[in-house]
Amino acid sequence: MRVNAYAASAAGQPLTPTTIERRDVGPRDVLIQIQYAGVCHSDIHTVNGDWGQQPFPVVPGHEIVGVVAVVGGEVTRHQVGDRVGVGCMVNSCRECVNCLNGDEQYCLNGMVGTYAGTDRDGTTTQGGYSTHVVVDADFVLTVPDGLEPAAAAPLLCAGITTYSPLRRWGAGPGKRVAVVGLGGLGHMAVKIAHAMGAEVTVLSQSLKKQEDGLRLGADHYYATSDPDTFEHLAGSFDLIINTVSAHIDITAHLGLLAVDGALVNVGAPAEPFSVHAMALIGGRRTFAGSMIGGIAETQEMLDFCAEHGIGSEIEVIAADQVNEAYERVLASDVRYRFVIDTSTLA
Amino acid sequence: MRVNAYAASAAGQPLTPTTIERRDVGPRDVLIQIQYAGVCHSDIHTVNGDWGQQPFPVVPGHEIVGVVAVVGGEVTRHQVGDRVGVGCMVNSCRECVNCLNGDEQYCLNGMVGTYAGTDRDGTTTQGGYSTHVVVDADFVLTVPDGLEPAAAAPLLCAGITTYSPLRRWGAGPGKRVAVVGLGGLGHMAVKIAHAMGAEVTVLSQSLKKQEDGLRLGADHYYATSDPDTFEHLAGSFDLIINTVSAHIDITAHLGLLAVDGALVNVGAPAEPFSVHAMALIGGRRTFAGSMIGGIAETQEMLDFCAEHGIGSEIEVIAADQVNEAYERVLASDVRYRFVIDTSTLA
Repeated sequence: MRVNAYAASAAGQPLTPTTIERRDVGPRDVLIQIQYAGVCHSDIHTVNGDWGQQPFPVVPGHEIVGVVAVVGGEVTRHQVGDRVGVGCMVNSCRECVNCLNGDEQYCLNGMVGTYAGTDRDGTTTQGGYSTHVVVDADFVLTVPDGLEPAAAAPLLCAGITTYSPLRRWGAGPGKRVAVVGLGGLGHMAVKIAHAMGAEVTVLSQSLKKQEDGLRLGADHYYATSDPDTFEHLAGSFDLIINTVSAHIDITAHLGLLAVDGALVNVGAPAEPFSVHAMALIGGRRTFAGSMIGGIAETQEMLDFCAEHGIGSEIEVIAADQVNEAYERVLASDVRYRFVIDTSTLA
Repeated sequence: MRVNAYAASAAGQPLTPTTIERRDVGPRDVLIQIQYAGVCHSDIHTVNGDWGQQPFPVVPGHEIVGVVAVVGGEVTRHQVGDRVGVGCMVNSCRECVNCLNGDEQYCLNGMVGTYAGTDRDGTTTQGGYSTHVVVDADFVLTVPDGLEPAAAAPLLCAGITTYSPLRRWGAGPGKRVAVVGLGGLGHMAVKIAHAMGAEVTVLSQSLKKQEDGLRLGADHYYATSDPDTFEHLAGSFDLIINTVSAHIDITAHLGLLAVDGALVNVGAPAEPFSVHAMALIGGRRTFAGSMIGGIAETQEMLDFCAEHGIGSEIEVIAADQVNEAYERVLASDVRYRFVIDTSTLA
């Protein structure tokens, strides 16, 4: 079937309306009528060519929420009419040790990205800035009734990217968690860490968003541009989630960790970090990284967010506003996520 | 009491015979007649002034084994005639959260180093290149009968420095552990990891010590100077212990870790490491550091080594050979630890 979409035709070009082909619904597939697609910074990096050559035209979008329109004959997990979501992956080998452990995002044979990826049948994947998508049922998540669909879309990337390390590194009652950066990822980290019962501190460049941070669930808010912050908070966190994709002084931030504390990076700046061994050794500290989460864990995250009434803070836009939205994301002028209403593509 | 010792009188000066004062045995103290003192690379860094100004004259030595000569009235843990050891610490506050957790090495009020440290009574500590030492009983370890005393001395630093991260990061049956560097620390890491039941690989600059490595318990041995090593072993370790104090390519070594793997640094080169975030994020990997171990854990390590018949590979020297030994350590010409027979000081 041919469906409407917004695509970049070449690196750095604005997105324009187009049509793309979606594959026939196979026995294990689900056809989803997309309702909302979040705008992730990764979308912009990809279409701008920041991450290398891409198979243009590229339809971005890996924060997808919609309704099941058709299911293949072997699909039992989802039914027509179900509200569902698709995140950053639409396939993996399912045979390697990582897939078998539920870590499809680290598939040893390469997970298939939701857009600009090469699926296991050799076709190029196209993302959620579109009216419909066909996805293997195993990579389709259930969006619980309690979640508002537009606000749920960013959970599929920003939500799981922060939920996974918070859960893995034990955020919860009695744990002191800091979130570096209050953007699309950071604001989700604050909400989720707060819901997990942790004591949450935002470490932001300035105090500009302090009121927001406290409203979203932070207990404390400090500016990292103030050198006193690093002195005052030395040794005081069990876990720091760094959501900033630009360069930060990792060694200085490691000094904010207590013994056995962990600083987990979820952004991936191109330039390497400079890390002093003594900052790690002096407190048995760890500097770690984490990338989205597995499918089962993503479902767990959606259920957790429904239970705790957590959605993303969003600004809903029409599809023809996406280029303007990209400019505003690059200028950090969004609180905190743009979501495309894909009915405007119909 | 005045006792014989070897001391450096100033930074970079050779060690020379001298006498130093040991404090009276207090009610909680133990007077130890030292038998053996290991020569640690830290001793050389300290007396050379590599780690900043020192309270010269400095008597180095924090790998001490001896026999209890006198105990204070309140001491119950040790008796006259017991074989005992002293490692890198001789005091800490015992009140902070880290001390209460058995992590005296991370004492928030500052642990007291065995030499060149300022004890809680204001005096400067002097180390094990001496005939006797007076130490608070809480910082005196029991050396089990099964351990040969000279070979046990290096366990007090090199042993615990490698045992602690191996234990904490789960070295054991089914775990693939790599040890970077086969020196004083590395050879202990190989023996201990092997005794814990892990599959052990040595990653050394060259294959020069391969025969030794395999004899000490390694299952595999690779040269890091061969670029094929990094391709061949990509993603194949659960834990890497880096014992090299000089610069290594951390990002390349992180690529050798499987998902959730950890690279733990026990050396502390002055220059920072360059770490690519993607090397961490792409496999939820961690880069961590670890410094010696707590007192209870050090006792656990000594008991483990006695049970498994593990000692250091040593070359016993007389005290007047120590300057020559320092030169050989700096030239990596020791397999694998010099130990001073302190009876040569009497």
